[in-house]
Amino acid sequence: MCRWMGWLGQSVLMDELLFKTQHGIVDQSLHARMGAEPTNGDGFGVGWYGAGEGPGVYHSVAPAWGDENLRELAAHIESPLFLAHVRAAIGSPIQATNCHPFRRGRWLFVHNGFIADFHRLRRDLMLAIDPAQFADVRGSTDTEVVFHVALTLGLESDPIDALERTVGLIEATAREHGVAAPVQATFGVSDGTCLWAVRYASEGPARSLFASADVDTVRRLHPENPRLQRLSEGDRLIVSEPFADLPGAWREIPEATAVCARRGGVLEERAFVPRVEAPATVA
Amino acid sequence: MCRWMGWLGQSVLMDELLFKTQHGIVDQSLHARMGAEPTNGDGFGVGWYGAGEGPGVYHSVAPAWGDENLRELAAHIESPLFLAHVRAAIGSPIQATNCHPFRRGRWLFVHNGFIADFHRLRRDLMLAIDPAQFADVRGSTDTEVVFHVALTLGLESDPIDALERTVGLIEATAREHGVAAPVQATFGVSDGTCLWAVRYASEGPARSLFASADVDTVRRLHPENPRLQRLSEGDRLIVSEPFADLPGAWREIPEATAVCARRGGVLEERAFVPRVEAPATVA
Amino acid sequence: MCRWMGWLGQSVLMDELLFKTQHGIVDQSLHARMGAEPTNGDGFGVGWYGAGEGPGVYHSVAPAWGDENLRELAAHIESPLFLAHVRAAIGSPIQATNCHPFRRGRWLFVHNGFIADFHRLRRDLMLAIDPAQFADVRGSTDTEVVFHVALTLGLESDPIDALERTVGLIEATAREHGVAAPVQATFGVSDGTCLWAVRYASEGPARSLFASADVDTVRRLHPENPRLQRLSEGDRLIVSEPFADLPGAWREIPEATAVCARRGGVLEERAFVPRVEAPATVA
Amino acid sequence: MCRWMGWLGQSVLMDELLFKTQHGIVDQSLHARMGAEPTNGDGFGVGWYGAGEGPGVYHSVAPAWGDENLRELAAHIESPLFLAHVRAAIGSPIQATNCHPFRRGRWLFVHNGFIADFHRLRRDLMLAIDPAQFADVRGSTDTEVVFHVALTLGLESDPIDALERTVGLIEATAREHGVAAPVQATFGVSDGTCLWAVRYASEGPARSLFASADVDTVRRLHPENPRLQRLSEGDRLIVSEPFADLPGAWREIPEATAVCARRGGVLEERAFVPRVEAPATVA
Repeated sequence: MCRWMGWLGQSVLMDELLFKTQHGIVDQSLHARMGAEPTNGDGFGVGWYGAGEGPGVYHSVAPAWGDENLRELAAHIESPLFLAHVRAAIGSPIQATNCHPFRRGRWLFVHNGFIADFHRLRRDLMLAIDPAQFADVRGSTDTEVVFHVALTLGLESDPIDALERTVGLIEATAREHGVAAPVQATFGVSDGTCLWAVRYASEGPARSLFASADVDTVRRLHPENPRLQRLSEGDRLIVSEPFADLPGAWREIPEATAVCARRGGVLEERAFVPRVEAPATVA
Repeated sequence: MCRWMGWLGQSVLMDELLFKTQHGIVDQSLHARMGAEPTNGDGFGVGWYGAGEGPGVYHSVAPAWGDENLRELAAHIESPLFLAHVRAAIGSPIQATNCHPFRRGRWLFVHNGFIADFHRLRRDLMLAIDPAQFADVRGSTDTEVVFHVALTLGLESDPIDALERTVGLIEATAREHGVAAPVQATFGVSDGTCLWAVRYASEGPARSLFASADVDTVRRLHPENPRLQRLSEGDRLIVSEPFADLPGAWREIPEATAVCARRGGVLEERAFVPRVEAPATVA
Repeated sequence: MCRWMGWLGQSVLMDELLFKTQHGIVDQSLHARMGAEPTNGDGFGVGWYGAGEGPGVYHSVAPAWGDENLRELAAHIESPLFLAHVRAAIGSPIQATNCHPFRRGRWLFVHNGFIADFHRLRRDLMLAIDPAQFADVRGSTDTEVVFHVALTLGLESDPIDALERTVGLIEATAREHGVAAPVQATFGVSDGTCLWAVRYASEGPARSLFASADVDTVRRLHPENPRLQRLSEGDRLIVSEPFADLPGAWREIPEATAVCARRGGVLEERAFVPRVEAPATVA
Repeated sequence: MCRWMGWLGQSVLMDELLFKTQHGIVDQSLHARMGAEPTNGDGFGVGWYGAGEGPGVYHSVAPAWGDENLRELAAHIESPLFLAHVRAAIGSPIQATNCHPFRRGRWLFVHNGFIADFHRLRRDLMLAIDPAQFADVRGSTDTEVVFHVALTLGLESDPIDALERTVGLIEATAREHGVAAPVQATFGVSDGTCLWAVRYASEGPARSLFASADVDTVRRLHPENPRLQRLSEGDRLIVSEPFADLPGAWREIPEATAVCARRGGVLEERAFVPRVEAPATVA
């Protein structure tokens, strides 16, 4: 189990959201409430858009709660769009190359959940990766493979469509191997302009996922909270579990649903329907 | 808060006690039950007597539950006497030099608890260290300072007496600085032949501490447990909290008490009475 | 031995200087030419002024040449004033709290060199630290102690004056202990507006230290180098050893000399004269 | 480039060979003389046979020269057969899962050299791994893939034969991809009873490899060296480069040659002839 959050909005010092909220993602590394386990101490990562070419990424195998560098970076890097992830490893090694967000070019990718029996599916799924990208897989998590399959299936053109094909392909592969309920996932994706998120499980309840309500509502609900009064139109958070100091300010993203947060506060929602289908762009 | 354990008995592969018990010390790094916090993920250490000169020490800033090297070492090092410690940092940096056990020569030292307001007392306590040893303090925890004060006050001659003087000195120093209830501690000490332990708090209940009951009792209580049937006369565990698969097999060490486990199963107990008194052996 | 560099000038992505020069500081972590040893692989640090309150600091115990996070941060953080340091440990542990730059408030401090026989002088030097700051020393290097003594002696009011008193005090302390030639140092200091540097040795040649020549000279010497043509008035580098792609563009800072680089390209120089004298500001 | 060493002989504390020789493997991590680069600071590993089931393995991403845990383990673990490896990464991440020795069951494997253009060959080579073992590849080095291909081709039955087939397969795969001179290697292999080593390059001079001369010769050459006088019949070292305090005591292993050191001092030598051939044991 893991926890992640994404921010799209005004440019903020990252610690405003990582450390200064009451039950932010770093606190969730030690005290998660809605996950299978309270502890997400097997490394973490942050990916942010700001100065320089494409997103920057910081990965560490230390628990987020105790990493002094994370405090420093969060207090000194401003970003209008970033993703943070705290990891609870289930089987794969605790190493930076297994920490989220994963990146290619302008794209970042995070995942909470798992591919069931990944050990048995890994080879077939890696064979679904564009051979030219095969050697870019540097770690050993399910998520990195999912990301590269999705890239192969067109994530950079249409991320939700590519993830539907990817999940469809994983489910088909799982069926061949007799693996039940293979996908348990919330995904977060960004290219630096939008923030996409998916909530889906092959079977049973999917991992929790929430979006912040529109800013007007949030401000009206909490007139006493100066942090919330500073929110502006178009600020949007997507999180595995709500921050405690924003009660009532969250809406749960339904199961089997994808959302897309765009600049200006737009939050589009659509059904997420996995399917097996060769993408047009791959021979 | 931290958790520690000590073993004195037959030579065993360390993983027998670190990993193969139901609620051993490594499990307590993630799920402690009797401490202020369930998580002790800010590094750990093991010190053992066996091959080579004096005790070996392995320290890591990683959480014990995820450290592959710890699994390897525990599965391949045999020892008749070792101490293990999982750390929950309260203020001082997460670095190997702040991980227990601390060592000098043949001596190992672990501590669960804290010196209250250590920040204010640190200078005076460091001045109580033999000047010739002052530069041996390499980290920044309260425990390392306590250890060096105790060494200065004769730990290598009489560990319990030296710890009584050390705690007395800390309490006197705290009074001067207006710090209340300064010492909260269980200590573990060994020279490779005996295992000493202390349970003491200046005020209020002290941290928990238990010794395994005598082996006969343990075996009779659990005739179905093959691991316990392998215990031999003279095997003794001292632990911050009982391992779950040994119910009824533990006796709580009373408050303000010191014990000494010796070869052959002897467990001596005496009152622990802090006092301020210049030791005879220091000019 | 260590290597460091400081930049004061236009705002640049840090990797422009850390990675993209031919023999920059990261290359010097593996292949230093003017030091006692070619390898400075015992951790590193970067401190920069930019977004957020005061300087940010990133420390790592990994060799700079292989740290992926350093590449990321350098490529995504812009700063008009930063200090970087690669470490070759001589005796004290490899831990983040021993990595430079050290910081207090707005101040950063780096050091190349050593205090001879620091083990013998450490206690007396730590006693020279303002007792209220004593507990802020978190690591075990000579440099951190030097920094706190200099803070005690007024570094925040007049850094060069305070360093003269500090070096004077170290030399006096060394004499008492029979330690010869105690100080070997280049220091770098900043408060976010200026960049001070000192080159000094109690005896024999001091560690190397260079300042970039004025920008006009540099551009005229290298009309073919696009990176140098981008330099603007007021850009100034201070470095332990010259970057190889700027031959002729450096002036050696003389022994026993302090310099101060200010905005606008000003580089002031004065003699550095250690002395023992109680500062007016300390009781 | 990397450096490795193997010991087969009397049971010794590992530090006798890792630290106490004049130019041992740990010194080679900082000052290698016969390699492409003097520095092998991108992690290291030790695998040893002794107490517990199968070999123990200790991996670290820190440079060997500065790792305090390595000093501790080496000074407190005795072994009659161990392999140590210091790494200079060329492209793949610095992470424990990329550190040698690699292990399966009773088998350990180390490698100095590289597979040229591994990025292009990685997919085809991973497809040559027994599908049931595919998911056991946890890192991203060429060596781990070579090891698993060799396991697939029968390493556990006949290690040299399997390595000949493996190298043959790599060379054939390289030809298909237009990659010249693909294999540059010395390999070390053990099952806890014997120590095999291979020196081979597809083209040009292979990496250096040496075996200690027979013990009688060594002792006669260095009557003044107490460490060498303690050597007994059957002690054998295989090393990437000679330790400096044993001049004249080494014989170079010829190119395209495999050796096998067995208990009792036997050192067998044979030609190493890569070939493409389906092994009998794989369907």
